[in-house]
Amino acid sequence: MQAINEIGQAAQNAAFTIGQLATPKKNQVLTAMAEALVAATPTILAANQQDMAAAANNQVRQVMRDRLQLDAERIADMAAGLRQVATLADPIGMIDKGWQTEAGLQITQQRVPLGVIAMIYEARPNVTVDAAALTFKSGNAVILRGGKEALQSNIALATVLQQVLTEFDLPAAAIQLITDTSHETAQALMRLNEYVDVLIPRGSGQFIQTVVQTATVPVIETGAGNCHVYVDADADLAMARDIVVNAKTQRPAVCNAMEKLVVHQQVAAEFLPQLAAALTPYQVELRGDAAAQAILPAIKLATEADWGTEYNDYILAIKIVPDIGAAIRHINHYNTQHSEAIITNNYAHSQQFTKQIDAAVVYVNASTRFTDGFEFGFGAEIGISTQKLHARGPMGLAALTSTKYVVLGSGQVRQ
Amino acid sequence: MQAINEIGQAAQNAAFTIGQLATPKKNQVLTAMAEALVAATPTILAANQQDMAAAANNQVRQVMRDRLQLDAERIADMAAGLRQVATLADPIGMIDKGWQTEAGLQITQQRVPLGVIAMIYEARPNVTVDAAALTFKSGNAVILRGGKEALQSNIALATVLQQVLTEFDLPAAAIQLITDTSHETAQALMRLNEYVDVLIPRGSGQFIQTVVQTATVPVIETGAGNCHVYVDADADLAMARDIVVNAKTQRPAVCNAMEKLVVHQQVAAEFLPQLAAALTPYQVELRGDAAAQAILPAIKLATEADWGTEYNDYILAIKIVPDIGAAIRHINHYNTQHSEAIITNNYAHSQQFTKQIDAAVVYVNASTRFTDGFEFGFGAEIGISTQKLHARGPMGLAALTSTKYVVLGSGQVRQ
Repeated sequence: MQAINEIGQAAQNAAFTIGQLATPKKNQVLTAMAEALVAATPTILAANQQDMAAAANNQVRQVMRDRLQLDAERIADMAAGLRQVATLADPIGMIDKGWQTEAGLQITQQRVPLGVIAMIYEARPNVTVDAAALTFKSGNAVILRGGKEALQSNIALATVLQQVLTEFDLPAAAIQLITDTSHETAQALMRLNEYVDVLIPRGSGQFIQTVVQTATVPVIETGAGNCHVYVDADADLAMARDIVVNAKTQRPAVCNAMEKLVVHQQVAAEFLPQLAAALTPYQVELRGDAAAQAILPAIKLATEADWGTEYNDYILAIKIVPDIGAAIRHINHYNTQHSEAIITNNYAHSQQFTKQIDAAVVYVNASTRFTDGFEFGFGAEIGISTQKLHARGPMGLAALTSTKYVVLGSGQVRQ
Repeated sequence: MQAINEIGQAAQNAAFTIGQLATPKKNQVLTAMAEALVAATPTILAANQQDMAAAANNQVRQVMRDRLQLDAERIADMAAGLRQVATLADPIGMIDKGWQTEAGLQITQQRVPLGVIAMIYEARPNVTVDAAALTFKSGNAVILRGGKEALQSNIALATVLQQVLTEFDLPAAAIQLITDTSHETAQALMRLNEYVDVLIPRGSGQFIQTVVQTATVPVIETGAGNCHVYVDADADLAMARDIVVNAKTQRPAVCNAMEKLVVHQQVAAEFLPQLAAALTPYQVELRGDAAAQAILPAIKLATEADWGTEYNDYILAIKIVPDIGAAIRHINHYNTQHSEAIITNNYAHSQQFTKQIDAAVVYVNASTRFTDGFEFGFGAEIGISTQKLHARGPMGLAALTSTKYVVLGSGQVRQ
């Protein structure tokens, strides 16, 4: 087991320095990192080749190998990401609120870094660079623990970023990669309360639940998305069809993809055949309750397990409901509080749905696929929070900060 | 063990109803609760007598018995607290931000309740009423688990509040008291992830650390306060003396009381004797490092353990430093990130201290005792967060809320 306490201590020391950096300096460093990554392309690709060879030997799934593989273009994309983060507004030092108290104290609430952020994530080397860029820009130190399949690629990438820190006389420990990918070390990181201010896990819903059960440091849950689209009786059915096709098929493996369709019984007989036809080219497997099956006899009967499952695949389960209240109850019962949509032209129903659905993002007449930091206009995304504390929904730079009250007095004592 | 799952499920169901209530209705209920508490004074006092008798039998410490004891005036104070919460602005439905995206979506970030809040706290019956009032006003359901010494008092109080809920046709499960005060039930509550959105523990630093180590639900750490006052070389020493006397002695048992004094060596010889004289009437035990001892020979030598200890008592340890940098390093090393103050007339030092000290609240020329929701002007306080996630510093109603993004479209799909 790597000396996780030493990593934590070094991160905390580095965080103090990074937290005090001026914005232009941070942007200069990010730009230099972009240049250094491109310059190191041959070294990074050689390391990635080792990971790819090991993945082939270990019969790693093709979808994971696709995410793992780097080429010059993907490295250029990472560099572009670093330059993009350099252009974003710096949240540190922003004043959220300010007022004067009855005792004559001036109080301002100012944005400060969280301190030390830990990330545990799957075998996607681009996350290493993204996470380092966003945590650095927001004045934090980061401890990265990527999937073991990407270890050589991650080492190559982190080494380049650390070299740039050193060139700027900054502590390399501001961006640390845990190279011991054992479960014991990951668990120790989850319990490193003395040094870690927040842990952001990325990966499958099951993995994130394991982290929640194991961690004693504060965790931000991300990602699990059993997302619904509810087609109301007053929906524009052509719009509903286009939105469902988009939400289901545009990128089915991601967390904001639609997994369940809820349809008002009054329009089901008209809507479902149209939808089934529109989904045919995408080879989406349809499942449904008995009422849906009565309209589309070829589909499989959905089981209780279906309603709570995030397929991340070309599968869609259909539930038919008698009214909007039943739709809301069904969604609130089975959803993962990620993204939910209603398609309707009924004003009162749009109000009821947005008020009563418990989710990070609630849509009227739009695809759930817009739940994304870039689509929201944040210019960045570190993940999508599905919990209610601290940050909810797409997380940009501001989610990587905390606040501090600065109180200016003139000798006040409390009565 | 009480059926904690059923309590959680009932709380979640109740939270849906309470979360949708209109503000005037909530205020009406709070006012009715105030009236009902006063009317039930004899019943509440009889229950409290049982707790007091048991406390006497069990030789409970006098300070705890003082907190436990109720009289008509204290019940009237609780009622006044309920009426005060009724006058506060309702955070639910407030729109924090709103904008239009490039795809033409209108996004608003709206305040919503957290859902189900659990509180574990010491034997102080007033917390039962305070917590119920604040969680109800912010649209949440609450699960209360108070200290076992206050059980009969808490049952009497919670029963009154629940009766009022029932009179208004609201679910009594919006305010539930756990009457099984076993550790097993408390632990089960700490792991009730399916139903509990946040757990706020109140009590000693050691107790809160136990909760952090045990809980799998999100926790907001509160309260531990090893607070420092740093007297700079450029301080107005009369102001410094008044602030230190206030911060140390005005209420030494609370978390925002001062525990440590850090003094610039240039003014130590002049300041410390003045301070010692001013503290004499309060019988404060002084401890200090060797340099402090050289100035005040009668004081005890402080040990390494002193620097990290929150005394909550009439004890003050003194550290002498060569410069402000050493003061900041000492404070950042030993503090609990609660409240820290600098006394100075040096502008650059005030800037450096407020920027570099890592704490929820940083003061210039004022007593640390102002770290308080009422003093801050929040009109309420559920606790003082010493963590960096979600809420930091005094927590008012807003800290008991989350947000939801509501996205209004006109048929948008993602490209």
